Amino acid sequence: MQLTFIQVLELLGTFAFAISGATAAINKSYDVIGLLTLAFVTAIGGGTIRDLLIGATPVAWMTDELSNSAIIIAAVIAALFFSYVKRLHHWLTIFDAIGLALFTVTGINKGIAAGLPMPICVALGTITGTFGGLLRDVISGEQPILFTREIYAAASIAGGTLYVAGAYYHADPGLIQSIAVTVIVTIRLVSLRYNWQLPRLRA
Amino acid sequence: MQLTFIQVLELLGTFAFAISGATAAINKSYDVIGLLTLAFVTAIGGGTIRDLLIGATPVAWMTDELSNSAIIIAAVIAALFFSYVKRLHHWLTIFDAIGLALFTVTGINKGIAAGLPMPICVALGTITGTFGGLLRDVISGEQPILFTREIYAAASIAGGTLYVAGAYYHADPGLIQSIAVTVIVTIRLVSLRYNWQLPRLRA
Amino acid sequence: MQLTFIQVLELLGTFAFAISGATAAINKSYDVIGLLTLAFVTAIGGGTIRDLLIGATPVAWMTDELSNSAIIIAAVIAALFFSYVKRLHHWLTIFDAIGLALFTVTGINKGIAAGLPMPICVALGTITGTFGGLLRDVISGEQPILFTREIYAAASIAGGTLYVAGAYYHADPGLIQSIAVTVIVTIRLVSLRYNWQLPRLRA
Repeated sequence: MQLTFIQVLELLGTFAFAISGATAAINKSYDVIGLLTLAFVTAIGGGTIRDLLIGATPVAWMTDELSNSAIIIAAVIAALFFSYVKRLHHWLTIFDAIGLALFTVTGINKGIAAGLPMPICVALGTITGTFGGLLRDVISGEQPILFTREIYAAASIAGGTLYVAGAYYHADPGLIQSIAVTVIVTIRLVSLRYNWQLPRLRA
Repeated sequence: MQLTFIQVLELLGTFAFAISGATAAINKSYDVIGLLTLAFVTAIGGGTIRDLLIGATPVAWMTDELSNSAIIIAAVIAALFFSYVKRLHHWLTIFDAIGLALFTVTGINKGIAAGLPMPICVALGTITGTFGGLLRDVISGEQPILFTREIYAAASIAGGTLYVAGAYYHADPGLIQSIAVTVIVTIRLVSLRYNWQLPRLRA
Repeated sequence: MQLTFIQVLELLGTFAFAISGATAAINKSYDVIGLLTLAFVTAIGGGTIRDLLIGATPVAWMTDELSNSAIIIAAVIAALFFSYVKRLHHWLTIFDAIGLALFTVTGINKGIAAGLPMPICVALGTITGTFGGLLRDVISGEQPILFTREIYAAASIAGGTLYVAGAYYHADPGLIQSIAVTVIVTIRLVSLRYNWQLPRLRA
């Protein structure tokens, strides 16, 4: 089995998402069932919601052995070497940004293939990239980080809009995907570096 | 584009549902991502769950440009003119009751078209009308209003049962739909006026 | 109508699941809408998620009149005779274990019929048996019992793995289903008797 560069990146993204779910389970002192459930929900929740919304069943992760292996490995590593994993925070943030970007592109591609309107394709991309984390927070009883902190969904929307606009004008798919991924990763990491946040709404 | 009277009512209902989701986001001091997510989830969550349960995919809202526009406009208005929107509470309550009634009828029609048993059709109608608000509360970490306050789902069930019974006896669809909508809106608004509530269960 | 022995057991399991949902609603002092919603969600939530994931729509419970009747009867009994129902705790625990076991087998059978990989079939079985309770806890704002207490999903996984392994080696379906159900019920009840728990994760 020969993995492409993109597949390796996707696996790193999936790994980072799963670590974030496993970390939530560990912080809540859940047992191994909670560990595996949250690792999976965080890593494949966004893609699952996307597949359900467009009717692409059985949903993708069920036949994606590589991703499932990455998720289980992430959960085990997080549980056994938690203090070590925390020290890898910097790398995990980068992998997570890559996952956000690639999942966004995957979601958009599925929306385009389903013939859906362009803004809906962007929404599907962002749902794919972010709703796993939303499910993680809702299931574990936390306020959704997605709604209160950092430039995360906004990075996905920005890059996703660029990508869909490029596709509309028949730009080279490989080129606009690369640009979209670069834009999402850059916005995400630069916003973290400078602690940019979206303004909070006030009543 | 010429809108029918029913379409205008449906848009007002969708608008009111979205305002309720946006209000929840503002009360939680979420950012614009939370604002849009909760506005959409509240307005289209019930119909989405209905469509998923019966396998009607891609789910309806994805190709309903008018509703999506109404939701985004509602979110923006709520964010920019929150204190003004609060003063429109009375009108929003009426629009919300209309939305509840029309969504109930839409859900029942989809259930009948899918050949499902009558009580299930009523349930699909009530799910369409009420589960968006349930999702709003669960995602934002609030106890579900649906379970503790006011005559809301009960109004939907009452009107929905009437409608399904009428359909069973082959009554004129337009007539029984009008009756069902009137019954739901009336029960909802009268119960609010006189502060009727369902009894709470006691252990 | 002649019910088979298995159907009677399944109805007892469904009944026990619904009682657990109704009990949660009563403990939260919800109204009758909350009562019915949680009774249904707990009893049919796991199977619904399974059906959605594999694209088996309309989802099974919508045309399963017997189960739906059992759920409504359970909700009514729980609401009217709550103190009496609590005294039946011992029997309900046994019925619940039977429900967990049978739902696991049903989920696995659907996974096998859909041609999914073996570990995914086990996961579908466990999702069928346990995610109704997870939904109950998430909707009512409780920390998921599934993640923190007792041998529950673990019993389902153990029996489910046995069953899938047996199916892989073409063992007699009736035989391996009986063994799997026995294993799940036994692990569940013995673990309760001796208060076994999975270790909790520590940060």
